[in-house]
Amino acid sequence: MVDWKDPPTLFIPGPVKVLPEVLEQLSRPTLGHRGKEYSQLHGETVSMLKKILSTEQSVFLSTSSASGVWEGSIRNCVKMDETVLCTMCGAFSDKFASVARACGRTAEELKVEWGQAITADMIDKKLASGNYAALTIVYNETSTGLTNPVYEISEMVKAKYPDVLVFVDAVSGMVGLPLHFDELGWDVVFASVQKAFAIPPGLAVFAVSDRAMEKSKTVPDRGYYFDFQQFAKSAEKNQTPTTPVIPHIMALHYQCTRLLEEGMENVWARHKKMAEYVKTWAKENFALFAPEEYASNTLTAVKNTRGINVGKVISAIQEKHNTVFGNGYGKLKEETFRIAHMGDISLDDLKELLGWIDDEIK
Amino acid sequence: MVDWKDPPTLFIPGPVKVLPEVLEQLSRPTLGHRGKEYSQLHGETVSMLKKILSTEQSVFLSTSSASGVWEGSIRNCVKMDETVLCTMCGAFSDKFASVARACGRTAEELKVEWGQAITADMIDKKLASGNYAALTIVYNETSTGLTNPVYEISEMVKAKYPDVLVFVDAVSGMVGLPLHFDELGWDVVFASVQKAFAIPPGLAVFAVSDRAMEKSKTVPDRGYYFDFQQFAKSAEKNQTPTTPVIPHIMALHYQCTRLLEEGMENVWARHKKMAEYVKTWAKENFALFAPEEYASNTLTAVKNTRGINVGKVISAIQEKHNTVFGNGYGKLKEETFRIAHMGDISLDDLKELLGWIDDEIK
Repeated sequence: MVDWKDPPTLFIPGPVKVLPEVLEQLSRPTLGHRGKEYSQLHGETVSMLKKILSTEQSVFLSTSSASGVWEGSIRNCVKMDETVLCTMCGAFSDKFASVARACGRTAEELKVEWGQAITADMIDKKLASGNYAALTIVYNETSTGLTNPVYEISEMVKAKYPDVLVFVDAVSGMVGLPLHFDELGWDVVFASVQKAFAIPPGLAVFAVSDRAMEKSKTVPDRGYYFDFQQFAKSAEKNQTPTTPVIPHIMALHYQCTRLLEEGMENVWARHKKMAEYVKTWAKENFALFAPEEYASNTLTAVKNTRGINVGKVISAIQEKHNTVFGNGYGKLKEETFRIAHMGDISLDDLKELLGWIDDEIK
Repeated sequence: MVDWKDPPTLFIPGPVKVLPEVLEQLSRPTLGHRGKEYSQLHGETVSMLKKILSTEQSVFLSTSSASGVWEGSIRNCVKMDETVLCTMCGAFSDKFASVARACGRTAEELKVEWGQAITADMIDKKLASGNYAALTIVYNETSTGLTNPVYEISEMVKAKYPDVLVFVDAVSGMVGLPLHFDELGWDVVFASVQKAFAIPPGLAVFAVSDRAMEKSKTVPDRGYYFDFQQFAKSAEKNQTPTTPVIPHIMALHYQCTRLLEEGMENVWARHKKMAEYVKTWAKENFALFAPEEYASNTLTAVKNTRGINVGKVISAIQEKHNTVFGNGYGKLKEETFRIAHMGDISLDDLKELLGWIDDEIK
């Protein structure tokens, strides 16, 4: 029987399992968002995020899912008569292009098959025309379990197309994968907290470069809710322009403290170790959906080479163990399935889950 | 010493005090937002909200503050070449006009002094020109403690200007004041949950009329995050278009259950009773800032006729009792102060707070 008060443990690629001590942070007494207590919480949290993202530029907290910042990056940094090059390699990078269009912008597509990566070379060939004001990339495509080579891409763009703004959807990449915002020369990066931050959904974290902040001043009709200038003005007082989702910011403070105590190099290594375990299992039993060199360290999309009934296996494990993993996304349903290994999921958790899957498919 | 982990009890007009058992709802295990458990939670919550708002039209949950729906109502229901009449009588109704402009629309102002009400007559005179596609009103102006006569206004608009869409900011009105969405003929109404729903901030509730849904189909460049069509499509599956703020929706489910058990007529009467107590105290000691017939039942803005140092009194009460009430908003700071009496604040809470204020000002 479906009962939202007794939900399964989540190994879907977001929202992911949240530790009880993190959940508890959400139920702290709430704050006035214009009071000193909130400013203290906000300031400390943003300082920690700047370390986590290796940036000295602006970091903001948006009371929205990360999808809101798809829209924010376009509305703030792309004029109506400019064209954005949208790289597309799965459901979420594809969506970025449709959001650009929903905001009335011209989005040109650089599209590969779902499961393939976007490379620096492909982007180079397109940008060579000189037609583009901005470029969108997904760091880690949650629908296909694929990590794009964003460090190589960024090096190339910085060297050859320094005027093109770079917007990066790092929803399932941030925290789990290396991310040095200033060094990469990105202009906007964003993620929701229900992925590797391991917090329930409801808050997005985003960073904006100084030059993107300058550009946004020149773009009319930016709106209000995602207006970067409003965020910057409020940030001076360690506030947000509109009333923020305070419970999640308290949980984020808690998680950032833990991440910095562990050290980001160690956090990334821990994700890599979990990924290696799951990838090995996947290759022994099935195959990886993404080419191995691009297979993600935060989730694995497994190619269902044995033709198992994925939905049935998920249901069986939910029934026996009140635990779920992810079916394939959209058109990849049944053809693939996905296992998250990010945030506060542990290697022991994964061993237990894979054991349960083994039991079902043996 | 400022310590966000030990914050004051809140009598500011939002966020307001939240009961421990409501806070606990936020720390329930989280859900997959595309799973059956979430759909169950969502469906039950929206059904209850429809009863609370007396509507059979669409009710949606937005992971944002209510400010996001300022923008949503404009982007979805006003074309670029249409004009919206913005009634302005305080900080938040004023802001609605600036948001319309930030979205590139033409906003014409119907403005009264802060502390005065917008009347049906004033609106009638403006709408008579036939120039307007839509009208914005704040139900309860949080900055001035004033309730606009929205039932009279709505009767007039329905009778004389049936083609004008009506967008109502009910942020500090919803739940605390009567609201019969369908009967009023409104097209969009919205509120944040940190007011009379008595939940921490991070979620907005909004209703949209069928005709506003139809109109939105004809408005281009609506964007994505607040696109009503996206909300409607997802609502068919009891989902939201983007990952929602699940902890708050769990708390909202809890609060809606309590509200319906109490009965909305009783809820409104309870707010009126609290308001009468505070208003009587205010008149005995100071004066009401709003004309008495428009003075709000969810918060009282007190006119500081005795020239007390409001900031000092708030600090003293915070120091002694770890409790705060609200100074005047913006330009009304020190000239007024505000006491919330909504949500789970009780008459006993108010008696205690007013006693503490008495001690400071005697």
